[in-house]
Amino acid sequence: MELARIGATPKGGVRRVTLTPADREGRELFARWCRGAGLEVRVDAIGNMFARRAGADPEAAPVVMGSHLDTQPNGGKFDGAYGVMAGLEAIRALNDAGVRTRAPLEVACWTNEEGSRFVPTMMGSGVFTGVHKLEDVLNNRDVEGITVSEALTAIGYRGAARPHEVGAYFEAHIEQGPVLEDTKTPIGVVQGALGQRWFDVRISGQDAHAGPTPMHLRKDALLAAARLTLEVNRIGSTFPDNARGTVGHMQVSPNSRNVIPGEVRMTVDLRNANDNTLLEMKQDLQKSIGVIAEQCRVSIQVEEVVYFPPSRFAPELVERVRAAASALGLSHRDIVSGAAHDAVYLSRVAPAAMVFVPCEGGISHNETENAKPEHLAASCSVMLQAVLETAGTG
Amino acid sequence: MELARIGATPKGGVRRVTLTPADREGRELFARWCRGAGLEVRVDAIGNMFARRAGADPEAAPVVMGSHLDTQPNGGKFDGAYGVMAGLEAIRALNDAGVRTRAPLEVACWTNEEGSRFVPTMMGSGVFTGVHKLEDVLNNRDVEGITVSEALTAIGYRGAARPHEVGAYFEAHIEQGPVLEDTKTPIGVVQGALGQRWFDVRISGQDAHAGPTPMHLRKDALLAAARLTLEVNRIGSTFPDNARGTVGHMQVSPNSRNVIPGEVRMTVDLRNANDNTLLEMKQDLQKSIGVIAEQCRVSIQVEEVVYFPPSRFAPELVERVRAAASALGLSHRDIVSGAAHDAVYLSRVAPAAMVFVPCEGGISHNETENAKPEHLAASCSVMLQAVLETAGTG
Repeated sequence: MELARIGATPKGGVRRVTLTPADREGRELFARWCRGAGLEVRVDAIGNMFARRAGADPEAAPVVMGSHLDTQPNGGKFDGAYGVMAGLEAIRALNDAGVRTRAPLEVACWTNEEGSRFVPTMMGSGVFTGVHKLEDVLNNRDVEGITVSEALTAIGYRGAARPHEVGAYFEAHIEQGPVLEDTKTPIGVVQGALGQRWFDVRISGQDAHAGPTPMHLRKDALLAAARLTLEVNRIGSTFPDNARGTVGHMQVSPNSRNVIPGEVRMTVDLRNANDNTLLEMKQDLQKSIGVIAEQCRVSIQVEEVVYFPPSRFAPELVERVRAAASALGLSHRDIVSGAAHDAVYLSRVAPAAMVFVPCEGGISHNETENAKPEHLAASCSVMLQAVLETAGTG
Repeated sequence: MELARIGATPKGGVRRVTLTPADREGRELFARWCRGAGLEVRVDAIGNMFARRAGADPEAAPVVMGSHLDTQPNGGKFDGAYGVMAGLEAIRALNDAGVRTRAPLEVACWTNEEGSRFVPTMMGSGVFTGVHKLEDVLNNRDVEGITVSEALTAIGYRGAARPHEVGAYFEAHIEQGPVLEDTKTPIGVVQGALGQRWFDVRISGQDAHAGPTPMHLRKDALLAAARLTLEVNRIGSTFPDNARGTVGHMQVSPNSRNVIPGEVRMTVDLRNANDNTLLEMKQDLQKSIGVIAEQCRVSIQVEEVVYFPPSRFAPELVERVRAAASALGLSHRDIVSGAAHDAVYLSRVAPAAMVFVPCEGGISHNETENAKPEHLAASCSVMLQAVLETAGTG
């Protein structure tokens, strides 16, 4: 709650956009708290922060807990910030209990997870894990033409720390969806993240007067778009493996109440936990588009603009999260992350796992985002137990 | 084609927006031609022009032919202008043949049929027939704040002629739809105009992440909008009496590709030749909306913003148009106007009828609007015969 004052909005949310003065202020508070807990804070060339607690074995790769402190322009108090605070709280608990781990521990704050000011999303963890090249992303610009490099320098967070090995990675995060709340489950044991295929669709018909043009002579692009929207919903609703199908964007032309629309641009977002099933969903989409184009007498162009394969978290770490929840007497369920998180990139270079916390109404990326203190505490305890199991004591 | 040079656009269309200098230039050319044909030109207080040819019986109410000379901002050569030119051509033909009619004849040019600069549409004929009050519409403003009154004065067309009785009214017009071309018919015998009911619809669901939100927990406003669009199409396609159902406008919020839409605003345009059937269509729409709101777990607000009852043209005049086409050996078919025209308002105060001409691809309100010379000539001949039958000879 103290961190959430930095960038606080009148509606109870947080505007702490990446590499702005508010982001710096948040980072400074975090660093101060880390030093107060006896941790050594380093910053790398893309601004990722690592706060380290030494282990008994200085050669062991650290067990890292983390997430991000940046928010959406109209974001909430918990998305990202909770995972960083949970890591710090776990270490404070170990300090209080006088427990030394074998492997070092770290709390990581990844730069620009949200991607709302600079693309790509998950920039810091993407650079750290080699998905993106540092030189490339440093030159990306925001809408005002400021580069990532300039913004990092401006807030004093272009650091010198070199990439280092990660022994294991844990991330606690609000679910950002309604499943845990709907099933009254305080702990989500995250199995992995859905793969994604995103499409841009352009439907071309013929605009014409709504009055003089009989139904059977129309080439109505919006009718085709409506049918495609229903097909996307059908695909999302009938395929197995946590399928999702969403049309989020639609632009109608000429968009006048008494003119049959001649053109529609729309997007399709397909997701699945299984890469083969995701491909079958794409093939079903393409088939449906062919049928609609013929029946509605329109032409439909489709372009796949994003393909992001499903990721599976490390089974032994996932099992430790599950076992920790059981040992603490907390009800839990396996869940798949519908969105990507820094943990998805970390899972490409180290064993990784996530713990999900229910959030009110499943609402996130919104100033009304909320979560219950007892759920936030429970998830932190679960992560601490799993981390202890992984780092060992010494 | 000479008239079409006034306001000609590079793509072959015409921009002769109401009460602009181009409109004045078009009116002046028309008036010059009328005086050249021996007609007396008067202008009324809303700028309607009446070019009169005396009849044998000076007490008889005139038979009026007309349409409008104003165009859409990106309009074509024929919409409106054809009907005025056809009226003038009919009178020139009578002059050439030395035929005197019993009733006087008039060619009318109605002010601001299009409504693209000043609302309402069909302003001149609406004032002439008492649908709108002169004082009200004179104060209407364009987007730059200029009133109708000021614009009339600026082009010198705020006249003094008082409203007068109309014995009968004929209007020749391009179809602005695809039916005549599709059926290879040169003459459309217009029975009347479709009634219209327009609705504003607002669908409220819950915006949420496309990834973390399972299909069964969504409140997707765009899915509901897509289903409603299909229902509107079903209603337009299955009801009798020249039904039409169109969704022309749709605005999605937040309209982001990976966010389930929380709100959609859309329009519905229902039309029918039969007022009872039009009401049944509205009732079916309302029922469908109730089902969709429940099944999609969204709330839907509907407001009827326009109700315009169907109009039927005078059977004896319609029969004269049909008989004239038959007598001239021209293939013809009965047709209902999907759009409103000045003739719809005139039919409220006098017997009225229309003749439709095929237009290329059914395209209108577009710079590529086109019609064949032989069709334009044929329709003019049909109107002349029907006018002669109505005015009588003396």
